[in-house]
Amino acid sequence: MKVKRDDGVEDIQAVWMEDEGETVKMIDQRFLPSELKFYSAENYEEIYRAIKEMMVRGAPAIGVTAAYGIAQAEIQGEDVEEASERIRSARPTAYDLFHAVDHMLDNLERPCKSAEKYTGSVIERCREIGENGAELIKEGTNILTHCNAGALATVDFGTALAPMRIADRDGKDMHIYVDETRPRLQGARLTAWELYNEDISHSVIVDNASGHFMQRGEIDMVMVGTDRIVANGDIANKIGTYEKAVLAKENDIPFYVAAPVTTYDDSTERGKDILIENREDEEVKEINGNMITPEESDVENPAFDVTPVDYITGYITEKGIFSPSELKNMF
Amino acid sequence: MKVKRDDGVEDIQAVWMEDEGETVKMIDQRFLPSELKFYSAENYEEIYRAIKEMMVRGAPAIGVTAAYGIAQAEIQGEDVEEASERIRSARPTAYDLFHAVDHMLDNLERPCKSAEKYTGSVIERCREIGENGAELIKEGTNILTHCNAGALATVDFGTALAPMRIADRDGKDMHIYVDETRPRLQGARLTAWELYNEDISHSVIVDNASGHFMQRGEIDMVMVGTDRIVANGDIANKIGTYEKAVLAKENDIPFYVAAPVTTYDDSTERGKDILIENREDEEVKEINGNMITPEESDVENPAFDVTPVDYITGYITEKGIFSPSELKNMF
Repeated sequence: MKVKRDDGVEDIQAVWMEDEGETVKMIDQRFLPSELKFYSAENYEEIYRAIKEMMVRGAPAIGVTAAYGIAQAEIQGEDVEEASERIRSARPTAYDLFHAVDHMLDNLERPCKSAEKYTGSVIERCREIGENGAELIKEGTNILTHCNAGALATVDFGTALAPMRIADRDGKDMHIYVDETRPRLQGARLTAWELYNEDISHSVIVDNASGHFMQRGEIDMVMVGTDRIVANGDIANKIGTYEKAVLAKENDIPFYVAAPVTTYDDSTERGKDILIENREDEEVKEINGNMITPEESDVENPAFDVTPVDYITGYITEKGIFSPSELKNMF
Repeated sequence: MKVKRDDGVEDIQAVWMEDEGETVKMIDQRFLPSELKFYSAENYEEIYRAIKEMMVRGAPAIGVTAAYGIAQAEIQGEDVEEASERIRSARPTAYDLFHAVDHMLDNLERPCKSAEKYTGSVIERCREIGENGAELIKEGTNILTHCNAGALATVDFGTALAPMRIADRDGKDMHIYVDETRPRLQGARLTAWELYNEDISHSVIVDNASGHFMQRGEIDMVMVGTDRIVANGDIANKIGTYEKAVLAKENDIPFYVAAPVTTYDDSTERGKDILIENREDEEVKEINGNMITPEESDVENPAFDVTPVDYITGYITEKGIFSPSELKNMF
């Protein structure tokens, strides 16, 4: 991903290793977009902290951070089993985190190489998603995206943002409408920051405004990421995704979901079976520490919603773009 | 409207006259919901300021404030033509403001009485909207509302909130889902505050979450206000209203618009003909003075959107509830 610094533009990963594995560095996402700060984790306890305190977020980026952390612990002569336990416990429901730790425990002979191999495969998948998705983007396409499915979440390229990066590399002009994505504002804070750094034309809009722009014919396509694709093709993604999908269908706008094939979970039959996490009230009630509701008011704060397969035009993966009917065969 | 104070609950208007017209008092809406402050306008310059600086907002409430201001100027022996000019200029596109000033200039013999008559008719219309709309609300109904179409905007009762107030008075239990309504958060800040003061059960949700609750069957009805109903039945209202209407139709949920019949503008044929105001970027980029986007990012900030008549179940007015096909005859 490109990052603008005072002395020019650098191409970096969101998380990387330095000093032959002694240090794991990352963009500290808590300070974006106002400040670009880096965090250096010098031992596995600091890796744990970086994941726990959400300096790094997004399942693939968390997985990579964990892989680097295990490599670091091995190099530093720490008890790797103990380090694994600690790192696993940082986000207790993160599938990529467990997967990365298991991969490292099975490949400890050359720890840095194993960690870089894991990271390389994460990045390569995203690049392929980008190459495949970029074919959908024509000169002048206006795309709406929701939340942050970018390089910050996946170490590089992103999922939903990967096709935009590749299309931009190929010289295609486009414009991205960025939903701000309340309550945590990942669109306004992170996606807009990534697009600014890539010099890709974009406008931040409140979540309420995307329907208006679709109705006016100013959006040609919706591209979002997803946390989970279940057996029938329903997806779970950031709250508000379902609203965008319904509005897209109503306005005859294609709605694409970008994700690696590992996101497919055929052990869950339908989206309805997915348990939706309710997050804390404060995410809604407070913005930057200021109350925006009466203290006494109740809040409901579902973190995700389910978009039924009927609203989905296609799935952009590293193996190609599939329609809902092709889904079962291809994954 | 009920307002909870340290020493009990009072029933007040959002704006009222005291000392035989020498003082115009109002809830200063800029400090809600965290602080309940009142502003006393002692002369027409302060009336101008109250309207200009949005201590009072909502077309009907602005109209009433203007009417009181003209009465005050007349009582204080000011040049009423000059006062009218000044007050009119506070919000240069507000139809109710001009209408209220004209009403007062035509009825200056007994200024306080004229102003109270004007205010009384505003409140009475809202009460009737409430009586009519309350018939739609059954025991246990879950209602979604967007923005603030409440007593703060109309001096008392509100438009979309009036049916809820009357249903509550009649002892019906209900639950209101309150869209926070970015960018200005009138739902979170004002509607939630009104419902808290009325002890009506409610949950504040981010605008992204209303689709999720509709999909899950947890919303039975949508009630919103409107700034304008045009000849074919299309409406203009706060940005995001169109999204709620599409989601309601998709989920077979009735979508009602509450407004006085004066909101009908048959000189405009279709919603498409309505010019949509774009407001300043800062409303989106900053919350409570903190930047939430990169400084360099562009923003689009349409204040309103158009909801086509096809998505509207009915119009709740002081003269009854009308379907779209009845609209032309009834207004």
